[in-house]
Amino acid sequence: MQALVLEEKGRLALRDFPIEETLGPRDVRIAPKVVGICGSDVHYYTHGGIGPFVVRAPMILGHEAAGIVTEVGADVREFRIGDRVCMEPGLPDPAGRATRLGLYNLDPAVRFWATPPIHGVLRPSVVHPADFTFKLPDNVSFAAAAMVEPLAVGVHAVTKARVKPGDVAVVIGAGPIGLVTVLAALAAGCARVIVSDIDDAKLAIAAKLGAVTPVNVGERSLAEAVMAETDGWGADIVLECSGNAKAAADVFATLCPGGVVVYVGIPLEPIRYDVAAGQIKEARVEHVFRYAHVFPRCVAMLASGAIDVAPLITRTFPFADSIEAFDFAAAAPRGEVKVQIAMPD
Amino acid sequence: MQALVLEEKGRLALRDFPIEETLGPRDVRIAPKVVGICGSDVHYYTHGGIGPFVVRAPMILGHEAAGIVTEVGADVREFRIGDRVCMEPGLPDPAGRATRLGLYNLDPAVRFWATPPIHGVLRPSVVHPADFTFKLPDNVSFAAAAMVEPLAVGVHAVTKARVKPGDVAVVIGAGPIGLVTVLAALAAGCARVIVSDIDDAKLAIAAKLGAVTPVNVGERSLAEAVMAETDGWGADIVLECSGNAKAAADVFATLCPGGVVVYVGIPLEPIRYDVAAGQIKEARVEHVFRYAHVFPRCVAMLASGAIDVAPLITRTFPFADSIEAFDFAAAAPRGEVKVQIAMPD
Amino acid sequence: MQALVLEEKGRLALRDFPIEETLGPRDVRIAPKVVGICGSDVHYYTHGGIGPFVVRAPMILGHEAAGIVTEVGADVREFRIGDRVCMEPGLPDPAGRATRLGLYNLDPAVRFWATPPIHGVLRPSVVHPADFTFKLPDNVSFAAAAMVEPLAVGVHAVTKARVKPGDVAVVIGAGPIGLVTVLAALAAGCARVIVSDIDDAKLAIAAKLGAVTPVNVGERSLAEAVMAETDGWGADIVLECSGNAKAAADVFATLCPGGVVVYVGIPLEPIRYDVAAGQIKEARVEHVFRYAHVFPRCVAMLASGAIDVAPLITRTFPFADSIEAFDFAAAAPRGEVKVQIAMPD
Amino acid sequence: MQALVLEEKGRLALRDFPIEETLGPRDVRIAPKVVGICGSDVHYYTHGGIGPFVVRAPMILGHEAAGIVTEVGADVREFRIGDRVCMEPGLPDPAGRATRLGLYNLDPAVRFWATPPIHGVLRPSVVHPADFTFKLPDNVSFAAAAMVEPLAVGVHAVTKARVKPGDVAVVIGAGPIGLVTVLAALAAGCARVIVSDIDDAKLAIAAKLGAVTPVNVGERSLAEAVMAETDGWGADIVLECSGNAKAAADVFATLCPGGVVVYVGIPLEPIRYDVAAGQIKEARVEHVFRYAHVFPRCVAMLASGAIDVAPLITRTFPFADSIEAFDFAAAAPRGEVKVQIAMPD
Repeated sequence: MQALVLEEKGRLALRDFPIEETLGPRDVRIAPKVVGICGSDVHYYTHGGIGPFVVRAPMILGHEAAGIVTEVGADVREFRIGDRVCMEPGLPDPAGRATRLGLYNLDPAVRFWATPPIHGVLRPSVVHPADFTFKLPDNVSFAAAAMVEPLAVGVHAVTKARVKPGDVAVVIGAGPIGLVTVLAALAAGCARVIVSDIDDAKLAIAAKLGAVTPVNVGERSLAEAVMAETDGWGADIVLECSGNAKAAADVFATLCPGGVVVYVGIPLEPIRYDVAAGQIKEARVEHVFRYAHVFPRCVAMLASGAIDVAPLITRTFPFADSIEAFDFAAAAPRGEVKVQIAMPD
Repeated sequence: MQALVLEEKGRLALRDFPIEETLGPRDVRIAPKVVGICGSDVHYYTHGGIGPFVVRAPMILGHEAAGIVTEVGADVREFRIGDRVCMEPGLPDPAGRATRLGLYNLDPAVRFWATPPIHGVLRPSVVHPADFTFKLPDNVSFAAAAMVEPLAVGVHAVTKARVKPGDVAVVIGAGPIGLVTVLAALAAGCARVIVSDIDDAKLAIAAKLGAVTPVNVGERSLAEAVMAETDGWGADIVLECSGNAKAAADVFATLCPGGVVVYVGIPLEPIRYDVAAGQIKEARVEHVFRYAHVFPRCVAMLASGAIDVAPLITRTFPFADSIEAFDFAAAAPRGEVKVQIAMPD
Repeated sequence: MQALVLEEKGRLALRDFPIEETLGPRDVRIAPKVVGICGSDVHYYTHGGIGPFVVRAPMILGHEAAGIVTEVGADVREFRIGDRVCMEPGLPDPAGRATRLGLYNLDPAVRFWATPPIHGVLRPSVVHPADFTFKLPDNVSFAAAAMVEPLAVGVHAVTKARVKPGDVAVVIGAGPIGLVTVLAALAAGCARVIVSDIDDAKLAIAAKLGAVTPVNVGERSLAEAVMAETDGWGADIVLECSGNAKAAADVFATLCPGGVVVYVGIPLEPIRYDVAAGQIKEARVEHVFRYAHVFPRCVAMLASGAIDVAPLITRTFPFADSIEAFDFAAAAPRGEVKVQIAMPD
Repeated sequence: MQALVLEEKGRLALRDFPIEETLGPRDVRIAPKVVGICGSDVHYYTHGGIGPFVVRAPMILGHEAAGIVTEVGADVREFRIGDRVCMEPGLPDPAGRATRLGLYNLDPAVRFWATPPIHGVLRPSVVHPADFTFKLPDNVSFAAAAMVEPLAVGVHAVTKARVKPGDVAVVIGAGPIGLVTVLAALAAGCARVIVSDIDDAKLAIAAKLGAVTPVNVGERSLAEAVMAETDGWGADIVLECSGNAKAAADVFATLCPGGVVVYVGIPLEPIRYDVAAGQIKEARVEHVFRYAHVFPRCVAMLASGAIDVAPLITRTFPFADSIEAFDFAAAAPRGEVKVQIAMPD
């Protein structure tokens, strides 16, 4: 079958790539319809690896996907051929200790699409467990559903934060993960979200998402902006989405007494961390890794209108132009958030 | 000063009623501008008491209020004359054990406006502690701010529930408290709220508040409706706002495994409670009493647009027609939710 | 193989009862060494059923068990032949929704030893999944390990309660479940546990378990005793273990503001439940059903000495006298708590 | 009155030091009977300050105290002359925002004994608010009660950790705060506590406190020791009590997936903090500052025997030898934990 294959660092090919997949009794076979391009896809393309995960053999890219069920396993009752669905890309070992505790995202044996050596889904067909496949209501488009994967990161982060209605949140970083986290924070009950970045184009998109105060930290101090907005008390929640070491080190400066920090972005190196600054406010600091149990919640919020991801989908390429799509995404043009690929019918 | 006085059960008077109030160093004096009529105000009027609280002497009514600061105490720095504010009507003993734990609503010594023998605020002026007074942003009207008191009940209830983004909630009862709880549940992250009542007019109002599924329980089973909406899993949260003994007894029928029930409405008598039904789902059941620490959160959510109370304010009377307003509210005409009184300039 | 078979209501037989069990790759085969008699075993014997679970065919009894591994499945790495173990008797469907959330005890498909039609373990051999089998340190006896099953109920209950160090707890009922809950509450950080019952013999056993205040509610008011002990504030936690409808209805009378009630005992009928009494204290009420994830925790606490179950094991019969053991347990003699059966070598 | 006065850095005097204190209506006057020497007392003596708190005028030392009530204010009902009590040394502003939320330890206006310019209690008499004074049962000695202040730090830390029964905890550092944290962790439900230090004398004391595994990190790896003890899973809770930058940086190496870290010790400088290591385990990191609401809980646990602080009180000096006591404490001899001063009758 025709697939988008990362042959090696820097070289993509749209070519025939045969994969034999057996349909187990609790599996479904799915034809992807829309696949989003994630920063990690681009990073594998441009760098050939992420940390310990190195591309050593040709690998199909893509893990943000929605599609149509084309075949159902013998024991699957909840899906029928033709169902519109989105899919969770990471599959844990069901018998793992973390999995059984309900913490399946922490299972070290997780197999994740487009993370070497597991193939992604920029291809016409994929077999997937029914338990990690989620039906779409009619009013959720494939494009929106392909956003569930990144959105899940934001929703998981604010779930861990345990937002209380009326909280003020700071989201550091207005990239794709920062923006889905803004959406999630607003949906989760924040009265206001203060978003920081150094890119006015990104901040302009953030500002359109709701009760958002954009702060260009190249021009003014985030801490001063937050204290001005909160009568000097500080934000209830700080969601660090930039992965920037300096920003990640300064989280306590904007926090209120008894507040919570969530580390969503992944700094490449250890940061300078001021324990005493966290102590004087008795900060709770949560660290999140992907997500667990939130895909159906994201679908429900898209369906009800609680969250609208449309403003974040800024460009769509046909599958035939996948390589162009990746080059476009890799160039990271100003004002672009999410690039998606529409699969052929 | 001219005040709305409940002389005795069934007899209201708009008359001069002198109250001397000393302005303490941490107090402000406020001229109320809008005062909402609560079910408890009406009940004191029609029944002369609520449980142990009996009207034994003329008492001014009204406890849902917003107004303008007209004088500030010597040690008050956060308010100025002319500030627009709303006020929390219950004042705990600051030295009480519950108060010091942060649970001030549970302090047995709370003094609450328009609960005998404490006067309410349907009068031209009232002295109030600055710590229980909250500044209004320009975009929050006095009418909306006078809704903060009932809204706080709903916000407190969903805060106790600890809503997770994407939850499905059931709100039992579409009266004023049910409706503010719907607003609070949606703002707090619920993807959908299923509202039950037997009054189609109330359900029609509920249905306009967002992602709401109205269920007339005179016509169909609530449990069946909830199970149909949730693939047989049940609702994550059940907020009982009717105070109806039968409804309060049936909460577990609509609940999902591991779900939470919040008792907001106050049944007059003990209910039949099926412990085993709660056990098989390991239900968490929260009981709420008024609210604590949520007034500024409500103001922030009105200011940001996270919550819009305008659809619930269905009628406004001038202060001169206060008695008519109470008679109107006591008649409880179909389709009416909140009746407010506009105070003279 | 020789097993203790409940032939029908009221009739036990110690007789050959062949069961063919296949050892799956993740299973172990175990020879039980000690099996405790639970109230439910006795109830099946004396009544032929519990609620919807009716004994319709001969069934082996016993679900509180410890033993020795005699065979290990192909994929089992964590056990070897000869390992001393205890076993969790309820097996959920791994693919069930509640199971995957980590709430496996709420899975409606749970198969539980000695609950019709599933056989129990009063027999020489049983096949069991490794994931529900727990290794015993040398200093935990088979007798103590066979107490892990009932102890798990108490530990799960106090885990749900979220005990804070220094809490005062009330345990209502000093039967076997009440007593393991006392042990669990003390181990979990309670400074003091007030235990109520009407049987002085049971209270005398409770009083020996640590910082325990026994209250014979046939002689004095529990609420008065609790208020006297807590300066009128009330207990932080009330653990209802009696299943008595009257006791279960009165839980709020002994509770402090902001306190928590846990329903452990299962009343046969709905109780009279005073919602308003719970509201004035903003009670949190938890309902528990068996336990989840606590077996290894119980083993660890037995091993470390944090919990000592020896005082609760009041009588041991050899397997050959199993029927006598059941008749003894059914007679419920004063001062007896747990009757166990020692299996032959 | 005769007091132990820190005249300036390095110079103590036992001399007459007149303080006039007015007894307010909610105050009590107390004659201290035992006062413990804290590391901070010693640090003011040897360094003349701690961070921003600099000794600029003669200051009485001592803040770990128990004593006898000698006078009661007009509105005090809960104490009588002669009552044995211990005292919480930090007094927040009751009107502060954090205080009213129940987070009084985070109030920036806290006045704390023996923190410049507030005098401590190594003197014959002190006036203190009744609300921060706690009655002692007869079976709690003054010496034990003077340990409540440091014990409160450990109890607050494990309360924040939200220990579950059967948890395994790591306590890093076996100094006085590490040791009270060990006691608190065991009392709070930990099945086992692994304690690390480089001082065998301190580890030997730790090892006597209960189910404790001492690890000399000069000789072996803490992470290896923890993984060996937990089958490679890691500890549920890591309580960092050393303030050592290297130890504080390595907390995630010993933690289990979904585990919690509590920073109790205060590193002098920012540490190297590996966010990604926290993310892969979704660590929750709590930061604590002193304590709030735990003094009565500590007294209750001392009274019930849940915690025994006697092994930590290694030396007692009479008040007349206070300077010698400080020189002794400053020398930090091996095997010494807590030095106390007995006040004259």
